[in-house]
Amino acid sequence: MPRVVALDVVDVRFPTSRELDGSDAMNPDPDYSAAYAVLRTDEGPDGHGLAFTIGRGNDVQVAAIRALAPHVVGRPAPTTARDLAALSADLVGDSQLRWLGPEKGVAHMALGAVVNAAWDLAARRAGLPLWRFLAGMTPEELVGLVDFRYLSDALTPDEALDLLRRAEPGRAGRAARLEADGYPAYTTSPGWLGYSDDKLADLARRAVADGFDMIKIKVGASPADDVRRLRLAREVVGPDVRIAVDANQRWDVATAVERVRELAPFDPYWVEEPTSPDDVLAHQAIARALHPIRVATGEHVANRVVFKQLLQARAVDVVQIDACRVGGVNENVAILLLAAKFGVPVCPHAGGVGLCELVRHLAMFDFVAVSGTTEGRALEWVDHLHEHFTDPAVVRGGRYAAPTEPGFSARMVDRALVDFRYPDGPVWTNLEAR
Amino acid sequence: MPRVVALDVVDVRFPTSRELDGSDAMNPDPDYSAAYAVLRTDEGPDGHGLAFTIGRGNDVQVAAIRALAPHVVGRPAPTTARDLAALSADLVGDSQLRWLGPEKGVAHMALGAVVNAAWDLAARRAGLPLWRFLAGMTPEELVGLVDFRYLSDALTPDEALDLLRRAEPGRAGRAARLEADGYPAYTTSPGWLGYSDDKLADLARRAVADGFDMIKIKVGASPADDVRRLRLAREVVGPDVRIAVDANQRWDVATAVERVRELAPFDPYWVEEPTSPDDVLAHQAIARALHPIRVATGEHVANRVVFKQLLQARAVDVVQIDACRVGGVNENVAILLLAAKFGVPVCPHAGGVGLCELVRHLAMFDFVAVSGTTEGRALEWVDHLHEHFTDPAVVRGGRYAAPTEPGFSARMVDRALVDFRYPDGPVWTNLEAR
Repeated sequence: MPRVVALDVVDVRFPTSRELDGSDAMNPDPDYSAAYAVLRTDEGPDGHGLAFTIGRGNDVQVAAIRALAPHVVGRPAPTTARDLAALSADLVGDSQLRWLGPEKGVAHMALGAVVNAAWDLAARRAGLPLWRFLAGMTPEELVGLVDFRYLSDALTPDEALDLLRRAEPGRAGRAARLEADGYPAYTTSPGWLGYSDDKLADLARRAVADGFDMIKIKVGASPADDVRRLRLAREVVGPDVRIAVDANQRWDVATAVERVRELAPFDPYWVEEPTSPDDVLAHQAIARALHPIRVATGEHVANRVVFKQLLQARAVDVVQIDACRVGGVNENVAILLLAAKFGVPVCPHAGGVGLCELVRHLAMFDFVAVSGTTEGRALEWVDHLHEHFTDPAVVRGGRYAAPTEPGFSARMVDRALVDFRYPDGPVWTNLEAR
Repeated sequence: MPRVVALDVVDVRFPTSRELDGSDAMNPDPDYSAAYAVLRTDEGPDGHGLAFTIGRGNDVQVAAIRALAPHVVGRPAPTTARDLAALSADLVGDSQLRWLGPEKGVAHMALGAVVNAAWDLAARRAGLPLWRFLAGMTPEELVGLVDFRYLSDALTPDEALDLLRRAEPGRAGRAARLEADGYPAYTTSPGWLGYSDDKLADLARRAVADGFDMIKIKVGASPADDVRRLRLAREVVGPDVRIAVDANQRWDVATAVERVRELAPFDPYWVEEPTSPDDVLAHQAIARALHPIRVATGEHVANRVVFKQLLQARAVDVVQIDACRVGGVNENVAILLLAAKFGVPVCPHAGGVGLCELVRHLAMFDFVAVSGTTEGRALEWVDHLHEHFTDPAVVRGGRYAAPTEPGFSARMVDRALVDFRYPDGPVWTNLEAR
């Protein structure tokens, strides 16, 4: 039986702040980065995962992943739902490491990277892309992946089982539709806060030409800029293309309501991260005040417990899962089940490094085996850094193509791991030398 | 002007798991540890702070503190409220590091350690114990310490100013009372889950003899054990000593309500951490169901935003601040102001390594300058590891003595930093050699 023989972790950083790609109201100059984890096996494929950060502190994230090595090194390579449930439970259940969260921040993202690497490994061994591997599991196996601690006031294992069983008959048909037509995408590429009006208009025009029926614009800096940029985007794309706005946590309740009302004439589709991702009650107040404009959040929501409350409180109209913020595939399955229970659409967060690559699998699994619909769903697309992955995300005509390669698509090309390694890779030593 | 010339960080761990000190339903075998931070100056006193962990992962916490060095090394030694507000704002405002939280977990505790070290430094330079240094600031200076982002739906700067101004006239009298009589304490030493019934009874008896009118018992393992242990404690201490019970996050909503109702015949004073510290709505449901038994939480509450919601939702009857979980003194001032606004008593969490030493200053500041009362307040006392601090907490007759030494009392004795250094200190190499 193959075993995990090492957990290798690399600090990889891309100097994106030079171009203001990824700039928003809270993150003016991110260097998109990954704490990249590889579960090495003595036989057969390795498993790849990552935690996404935006630069400084990526070394801390690396240290947190390394701290998990004792739980995985020497372990048989996981292959089944049961193995993957056991691994996740062992990692979450480390009582000493739990103090560092619990289940949030650096320690939790580290756990997510290792859990995702284990899923990559298992899917590769099964010869299936992750979405197909996961959607091939029985409802009982899927329910067995989930840690229901703290969830039972909103979702019980029996309710989850019912949901999954109801979706079971249509799985094959939906998988075939995905392979034929892909999954709806929207693009954030036009809207970074650091871009000029000309660049915004150009990219918005190009997005529509490329087949997107939804784009996203960053807001939250000066109110006048927000209005001008959204008006411009609306003029360029016309009335039928949806435009989401994203405030990246800049506002308190009253400011969020005021600012979004000022944007209302330009018909924003949702307002994303209007305030602190920890603030369920603030999102509830904002959602009530802004209805029917949707409220979305999730990329910084720490775990399933906070998602549960956002849903219980009807504080969000859109759930934005992130492949690398929470405890990996297992916790994202829990969040997808919660969203399905409350009938709220999931529109995953992507962009970053590798986030598009990974999260498309979860959106497609949701469609095939959980929610059974793409109604009101769209998966974020940001067109950069994909060239560094061996199985990059592909979007055509405004839709994500279904991945066909085995695994979870987290694997980076060897060259990227050499060139962008921090601080000693040539890209960084050359920048330093200037 | 003196400057900070280095940020030294040491991994210090105590092998407490050998004695089951500190054992509870979620933490069966903690090795109480500190990521210990020293702000070295070129002239005058250094500043000391720490993040508390329970063993594994303390190295990750050390790495997270080191990542903050660029913000402090080379900076003038902070002396004023304005300096300390600026330092906290710089650390919280690091847009790249913010991604690791935001404001939660490893990254946030690291920030808290550095902020607290800066306060230690400033109080030492002022020649005052932290509680007196802080309580000597004007209401305007105190309000200036607080980051009101995300708070304005519950507390505005003007409301905070009003609160502080109302408490201002009585400050001197209350400080004098503290120095004469100390601050009420309760003890958790009898109740660790790993202790035998005999040890529990013995320690409970001794606590009452030592003058405590409140003790705490850990619960959350088997229901029969919980009932037996609480019944025993009640028999030993009699009807007039308050007994809090602490479930350390073990339960879901329904289980919490059921279990605590089984304990009700033995008159528990509060139930602490009945469920996930992230779950505002669950605490609200539990508090409503269990009223008039109080619900308490806080030692794992990630930041002021979650405390705010617990108060807004009337989900807690007792706020348990922790000196080292959130962003240091500045954020704890925010939490004390929120609690005062909502009229909820603050009973700080202590125990751990150094937590008693630090948090007593905050409880005393609260009494002198914020809430103005000790009614319904008690500060946790756990009688171990104090010998490793240069200004250890002292409890006599069930009351904490007011500290008189300059600083925030986080400084460890040199010997402890050598002996318990992990993994290369002699205590650990000797354990390893056995």
